[in-house]
Amino acid sequence: MTTADARTPASKQNDGTPDGAIPDDGAGKSIGWHKGYVQGSRPDLRVPVRQVHLTNGKDVTLYDTSGPYTDPAIDTDVRRGLAPLRENWIIARGDTEEYAGRPVRPEDDGVKHTSPRGGLRNLDAVFPGRPRQPRRSRDGRPVTQLAYARRGEITPEMEYVAIRENVEAEVVREEIAAGRAVLPANVNHPEIEPMIIGKRFLVKVNANIGNSAVTSSIEEEVDKMTWATKWGADTVMDLSTGRNIHTTREWVLRNSPVPIGTVPLYQALEKVDGRAEELTWEIYKDTVIEQAEQGVDYMTVHAGVRLPYVPLTARRKTGIVSRGGSIMAAWCLAHHKESFLYEHFEELCEILATYDVTYSLGDGLRPGSIADANDEAQFAELRTLGELNSIAKRFGVQTMIEGPGHVPMHKIKENIDLQQEICEEAPFYTLGPLTTDVAPAYDHITSGIGAAMIAWWGTAMLCYVTPKEHLGLPNRDDVKTGVITYKIAAHAADLAKGHPGAQEWDDALSDARFEFRWEDQFNLALDPDTAREFHDETLPAEPAKTAHFCSMCGPKFCSMKISQDIRRQHGGSQEEIEEGMAEKSKEFAAAGNRVYLPIAD
Amino acid sequence: MTTADARTPASKQNDGTPDGAIPDDGAGKSIGWHKGYVQGSRPDLRVPVRQVHLTNGKDVTLYDTSGPYTDPAIDTDVRRGLAPLRENWIIARGDTEEYAGRPVRPEDDGVKHTSPRGGLRNLDAVFPGRPRQPRRSRDGRPVTQLAYARRGEITPEMEYVAIRENVEAEVVREEIAAGRAVLPANVNHPEIEPMIIGKRFLVKVNANIGNSAVTSSIEEEVDKMTWATKWGADTVMDLSTGRNIHTTREWVLRNSPVPIGTVPLYQALEKVDGRAEELTWEIYKDTVIEQAEQGVDYMTVHAGVRLPYVPLTARRKTGIVSRGGSIMAAWCLAHHKESFLYEHFEELCEILATYDVTYSLGDGLRPGSIADANDEAQFAELRTLGELNSIAKRFGVQTMIEGPGHVPMHKIKENIDLQQEICEEAPFYTLGPLTTDVAPAYDHITSGIGAAMIAWWGTAMLCYVTPKEHLGLPNRDDVKTGVITYKIAAHAADLAKGHPGAQEWDDALSDARFEFRWEDQFNLALDPDTAREFHDETLPAEPAKTAHFCSMCGPKFCSMKISQDIRRQHGGSQEEIEEGMAEKSKEFAAAGNRVYLPIAD
Repeated sequence: MTTADARTPASKQNDGTPDGAIPDDGAGKSIGWHKGYVQGSRPDLRVPVRQVHLTNGKDVTLYDTSGPYTDPAIDTDVRRGLAPLRENWIIARGDTEEYAGRPVRPEDDGVKHTSPRGGLRNLDAVFPGRPRQPRRSRDGRPVTQLAYARRGEITPEMEYVAIRENVEAEVVREEIAAGRAVLPANVNHPEIEPMIIGKRFLVKVNANIGNSAVTSSIEEEVDKMTWATKWGADTVMDLSTGRNIHTTREWVLRNSPVPIGTVPLYQALEKVDGRAEELTWEIYKDTVIEQAEQGVDYMTVHAGVRLPYVPLTARRKTGIVSRGGSIMAAWCLAHHKESFLYEHFEELCEILATYDVTYSLGDGLRPGSIADANDEAQFAELRTLGELNSIAKRFGVQTMIEGPGHVPMHKIKENIDLQQEICEEAPFYTLGPLTTDVAPAYDHITSGIGAAMIAWWGTAMLCYVTPKEHLGLPNRDDVKTGVITYKIAAHAADLAKGHPGAQEWDDALSDARFEFRWEDQFNLALDPDTAREFHDETLPAEPAKTAHFCSMCGPKFCSMKISQDIRRQHGGSQEEIEEGMAEKSKEFAAAGNRVYLPIAD
Repeated sequence: MTTADARTPASKQNDGTPDGAIPDDGAGKSIGWHKGYVQGSRPDLRVPVRQVHLTNGKDVTLYDTSGPYTDPAIDTDVRRGLAPLRENWIIARGDTEEYAGRPVRPEDDGVKHTSPRGGLRNLDAVFPGRPRQPRRSRDGRPVTQLAYARRGEITPEMEYVAIRENVEAEVVREEIAAGRAVLPANVNHPEIEPMIIGKRFLVKVNANIGNSAVTSSIEEEVDKMTWATKWGADTVMDLSTGRNIHTTREWVLRNSPVPIGTVPLYQALEKVDGRAEELTWEIYKDTVIEQAEQGVDYMTVHAGVRLPYVPLTARRKTGIVSRGGSIMAAWCLAHHKESFLYEHFEELCEILATYDVTYSLGDGLRPGSIADANDEAQFAELRTLGELNSIAKRFGVQTMIEGPGHVPMHKIKENIDLQQEICEEAPFYTLGPLTTDVAPAYDHITSGIGAAMIAWWGTAMLCYVTPKEHLGLPNRDDVKTGVITYKIAAHAADLAKGHPGAQEWDDALSDARFEFRWEDQFNLALDPDTAREFHDETLPAEPAKTAHFCSMCGPKFCSMKISQDIRRQHGGSQEEIEEGMAEKSKEFAAAGNRVYLPIAD
């Protein structure tokens, strides 16, 4: 694996600032870590990695989602947006064309012509980056990674993720072609660094951002997106429901190195001023096209919430908790008609296929409490999602399936097993699940438990939950806590699944721990800043970073130290150690043979 | 269930202060919650509960570990200690006697006669509470709950926990008699509110406290103990390794409403100035008696670390990480002798039986990294623990078994299954396990995942892990975070095990959530303070606490609101709602019948 050399100071990952001098250990390699690239088969195919440099001279290569922001060699500017990494790949395929596109209207930002306040909060809000025309399929045929994979083509995007996942490109193509994995990559979002979602690959994490009618601004949302990817978010969903939805999304898309997901229904609802019954297929379709032209990579569509299922929620403890689900339920009941999303699903497939927008079939009837888990309403919808999954595949649209929610541990496995069976192994994308309802303010933990388990059993992507779930909108700290918690769940699952290479990371950190290489422990940690900060709280002095003891036992006695003494006592090299110890153990052969059958004894 | 009426203001649980006016809703019942008591078969048997008063007039009764500190009717003073609740029960049994006891020596507090500093840091440190003489078995026969249970006696302690667990007293007696549960209750710790540890009961949580050679004071440790029990710790282990070990433990014991555990080996090591090879059976035995006379309820004994097993750790990534384990390994190798704990185990059983000290057989060879999980060294020791468990039972000593450690998810179940088989279903008491090594500063989460799973599968008590694990000593906030995280894991397991009544708590909170009873949500939460604080961050205004929407969706649209509108739309009462909805669903009978077999369709 060859890596380019975009040097980055150790401090950089820690304070997240793009500038600052680059410390050097003199050996010509930056201290701590640097952003590296793995060169693919073509000059413009370079896969970013995080190269951690250990004080013992070794390197550890980690998956990197942070985008160009952590590469000091690249000058980023949120007002300009990221470089269109994939543009040439898309053009080279020759199956898309630029076109005028749908004109942006004030109501796209939730502004009525009659609005006394008029326009955007401030004109600066309009994205000032390079002008662009939307792109779509030249002839209406699917321009999706699924279509290419079925044709046997290995696209640059597929090669890119193969390098990222450290597998053969053919494996990536097969999984996509079979519908067991998705590679969300709208032709109008050339800025992304391709990633893949499927059970044969590393478990991914999504972070939600988005303003609401109640709080927050465009700047905050763009910052939350870069912040979330810095800590490891593989995709980001913009769930904005307030004003400036269109403009906020434009800023997010143009600056995002990861796929962006949305729930078009939220914006559609804003266009009818929050009155669900006034929604129409036309308004919804127009919103989908608006977002597809901007470059949204995957869309949550609640087409599984059918009128006949709504009564099934009457006996529930918490009814319908999915916002999209309840919007569609309200519409269905107001008109006593079948869902317009279900009725127009094939037409929707045709639209998504021409931009390569990936379906995330929403679970609008997911349980919102332990009491409602795995009930009739939930599984009735899941069966319909299976039906819709088959239709989407027929139209060449990449598809993943969303899952719950609130589920006690003993009912989790049934969710993934049923979904895999009903949806022909389409990637499962779950929210948690939360394993208890009694800990508001700690739902990142109640759900991190369920997330780790369901990911071990086959869920491909986990939607994070922050400490603010059920209580308020997450701030910067909540986003970080949510992402870190879910990276833990995802990696724990990668280990349990025996994902190739997953354990190397744990082993490198454990070696550093055993050898008291504190700086290496910090640099290998999911969150180096906090690890270093916690250590320094108890033992602030610099020497403590090289001390062969820690604050738990203190200098007088340390278990790690004893283990090392035991080794030393039996010679230097690993070989000598084992010989020496084997020697000692021979002395107790009798006992040694006995202790393996103490009970029979 | 009758409950006495020790009123407590809602604010009390929140700020933890014993004073402050008691707000009243006018209905003669305090707002939020109050400390109640369930009356047992005798006047002096009153079991504390937390009575949460909901704004809809209903009450929810929760398990309460906080002790007299949360009862405003009781005047507590850490300098005086808690009232000896069990004293009369112990005396009434007539099988124990007071005696002079072992004189306390300076070295018990780590002070050498030759010490230039001499004595304690300050004389105030000596516990000023009522003078007491230690108590022990009158005739050397076991005075353990196990012995009583085997004789068919239901002690007041057993009745107490039966009420707490909401089961028949006979069930408690049977589980203890069979060795499937322990009721740690040293005759010298009459202050405790009895609790039980066993897989048929609620999963329990232990919090570790203790100063070290490096930091912290007596005051801090006593405060950490009351703080930990306030948030739900069922037992507390004092792992002090620094100075004033004896005196710190005295303060902790006299003020603790929960059983206290220790690792006597730590203090014994201090007595030989940290030189493991200088340890002797006599010094260790003397330390065990010292602690038993003070009232330690359970002791971790690393008698399973046998000389022949030490070489098995040579190939490990992180060797021996248990402090007690490495101390014994060092001793074994220094003398090339079998462990003095293993050799003198029967004598130790005789001592513990005369005070009713419960064994916690330590897993000194537990894995300290993902790489070392479930290895030969770990399971060789576990088989020896099974052997020792049988011996302890023969001597009438209550026994639980300690477990790992660091274990990836797919290797967790093997741990509990093997332990239950080898140790005849003795209670398993596990540390986590941590499911990955890559997240220092978040090991409460990496381990909370493993803890929830292993508890679901049968672990009886979980030893908490704080965010400072591997990095430093936990402060007050870390202790709270560790306890809350582990209460989540324990309750998630109670739900998954289908523990009777466990889900009522979740249901009550989910009802409150669905009906926008914010104050009820806060008061029912594991951590009311933080839940309220997070809500107020986004929606500070008082009206927001009664608003029928939250900050996620805002006033214009709310999924919970829609669900309620759906109900209203179909009539008032639950019956009418369901009729109304059934009516609607009939209109779609055809589709209704179809949707249940969409794929076959």
